[in-house]
Amino acid sequence: MKFQIDKSALASIVSIVSRAISSKTNMQILEGLYMEAKDGKLTLRATDTEISMESQHSCFVEEEGSIVLNASLFGDIVRKLPSAMVHIESEGQKLSLTCEQSHFEIMGQNPDEYPQLPELGGSEKIVVTGESLLKAFKETQFATSNDDMRIVLTGVLLDVTKENITFVALDGYRMAMSKIQGEQDVIRDLILPARSVSEISKLIDENKTLVLEIGNNHILIQFDETKFFTKLLNGEFFQYNSLIRKDHDMELLVERKPFMAALERASLMTGKERNGLVKLDIHDDVIEILSNSEVGKVHETVKAEKTGKDLAIAFNARYLLEGIRVIEEDTIKMGFTDAVNPCIITPADGEEYLYLVLPVRLANL
Amino acid sequence: MKFQIDKSALASIVSIVSRAISSKTNMQILEGLYMEAKDGKLTLRATDTEISMESQHSCFVEEEGSIVLNASLFGDIVRKLPSAMVHIESEGQKLSLTCEQSHFEIMGQNPDEYPQLPELGGSEKIVVTGESLLKAFKETQFATSNDDMRIVLTGVLLDVTKENITFVALDGYRMAMSKIQGEQDVIRDLILPARSVSEISKLIDENKTLVLEIGNNHILIQFDETKFFTKLLNGEFFQYNSLIRKDHDMELLVERKPFMAALERASLMTGKERNGLVKLDIHDDVIEILSNSEVGKVHETVKAEKTGKDLAIAFNARYLLEGIRVIEEDTIKMGFTDAVNPCIITPADGEEYLYLVLPVRLANL
Repeated sequence: MKFQIDKSALASIVSIVSRAISSKTNMQILEGLYMEAKDGKLTLRATDTEISMESQHSCFVEEEGSIVLNASLFGDIVRKLPSAMVHIESEGQKLSLTCEQSHFEIMGQNPDEYPQLPELGGSEKIVVTGESLLKAFKETQFATSNDDMRIVLTGVLLDVTKENITFVALDGYRMAMSKIQGEQDVIRDLILPARSVSEISKLIDENKTLVLEIGNNHILIQFDETKFFTKLLNGEFFQYNSLIRKDHDMELLVERKPFMAALERASLMTGKERNGLVKLDIHDDVIEILSNSEVGKVHETVKAEKTGKDLAIAFNARYLLEGIRVIEEDTIKMGFTDAVNPCIITPADGEEYLYLVLPVRLANL
Repeated sequence: MKFQIDKSALASIVSIVSRAISSKTNMQILEGLYMEAKDGKLTLRATDTEISMESQHSCFVEEEGSIVLNASLFGDIVRKLPSAMVHIESEGQKLSLTCEQSHFEIMGQNPDEYPQLPELGGSEKIVVTGESLLKAFKETQFATSNDDMRIVLTGVLLDVTKENITFVALDGYRMAMSKIQGEQDVIRDLILPARSVSEISKLIDENKTLVLEIGNNHILIQFDETKFFTKLLNGEFFQYNSLIRKDHDMELLVERKPFMAALERASLMTGKERNGLVKLDIHDDVIEILSNSEVGKVHETVKAEKTGKDLAIAFNARYLLEGIRVIEEDTIKMGFTDAVNPCIITPADGEEYLYLVLPVRLANL
């Protein structure tokens, strides 16, 4: 292999594909970047077996070939090179790199041992805007479960129908749901791992249209010269529709920012042993937020517009806050039945986002 | 105690004095902020026994008194309060805080148990500009030792004479020295703990003149309404002057930035077991930087202007880099005798900064 490429182009594709490399791997080959020079292009590839990425850049190829290099070492070297042409040459598993007065020899690994890119084995496609995908991911990903015992809940469900795509994440204590309207030819349930959702989100350009190519076990998204593959999680997702209640015995309209600020202050006083517990005492046109722990007491009062009965109910403050923080609208709607059934939170206008959170049962409420 | 103060004033002095609190303390009272309302002023105080800080702000005091509050909890609460007047009242060790619709009750501790501010017991003074003090600290602090067995070397020496102040830090492998010119009435050796130097540096305003008040065991620096006390380290510092060689068998003039960039790249290839070892092969008008480890090889060439014999010498790359990084001038001067005696680095012009670093002895050099 022998080729030349500009330092900034090389640094850019190295940093993109390196996102796929996991720090947790214990297979040495997966700490590596696969590098191939062929047909006037440099191709880099990386994978942690869940996410696979490939990125290309045109370059002057004198001799075709491939090698695998330690991604962290190679990335550090490339970043620190002077801004000039980089001359790369390999013989067997030894790579030499020259850039102005710098000359490196780096031991690589056998490229034949590097995993192939996944094969999609399917040709269904979904088209969405970058902006809507980014919003739907942001509104759901935080609610995925960390519990590896129910692996499907560690991902975000994309429930694709002819009319829309519903994004759902739930962990047994709360559920976040976000809808993208728009017609598709596809009817499928796709479950994307949370880490994939987080990495895709970093690559999405809000102003572009994205195509999700759906395979049997993977999806592929292309961003310019970069291909992003993610494994899909296998299994039946929870029947989330059965959780959603349409009618509430009490509804509140509340300004999002002051309510969040009061919850944040209150959660400071919940103490370590109380697991972030806050009580809401909702009566007349106020929500009183109370917490009482070994470190002290807090009492916050927030104005609200109430329809229906009074209610005293307790929540884990973090769960309430995480569901409200992702909403972009100024006013939110909260629907309750009683102190033991879930609270349902949506923007005051619009049904594209819904958050459901279970209260904490207290003996003395 | 009963007083009122604007939220932003309270947040500002809490964040200043909280710098003195160490996360490593195992005395509960030292996790606290001492708070006193008296004579139309709120005074906050914190200490880790090495550093003590006090900051004041005028406020409306209705009833004098004092309390000790957990600094981390109180700081979090104050930061998150709305921008409005904060009403604080205490009874015994219980503090209540009201700010608009937020009401907190926080359990405090007995203020009588809180350490007093240090007594200086001396009245010698040094006057320096903020800019020169900051520069001298930056040029020396990094070279302090971490070895608690030789406690004086964990600090920065201020060797104060009638003509100047010499700042010195050394750890057995290298020494950094910086001078502030200017007359004083004081002749003293002061050793400031490295953590104090780091915390003072964060408070220094480059454009102001500072007074260091010297006591028997402490110094005091005042920044507007803030007093910063630091303990001095006791003991004899190393006779640093004996280390400084005036004449060199070989001298180099080299551009700082390209040399640093080459050293940084070379240090990437030194591998974990080699402790950052780089070899310099200095001949004709070049420095060749070489490193060779299990991960690969590097060869960098940097131009230099040489006076004297050729030389091959090896260093820990990190030590070389740290001493060169703090220099502000474009060109540096390096003086050598042979492969086993220290290299002395200064700016090409000026004698205010000097860095001495021991080479690593290699069998095959």
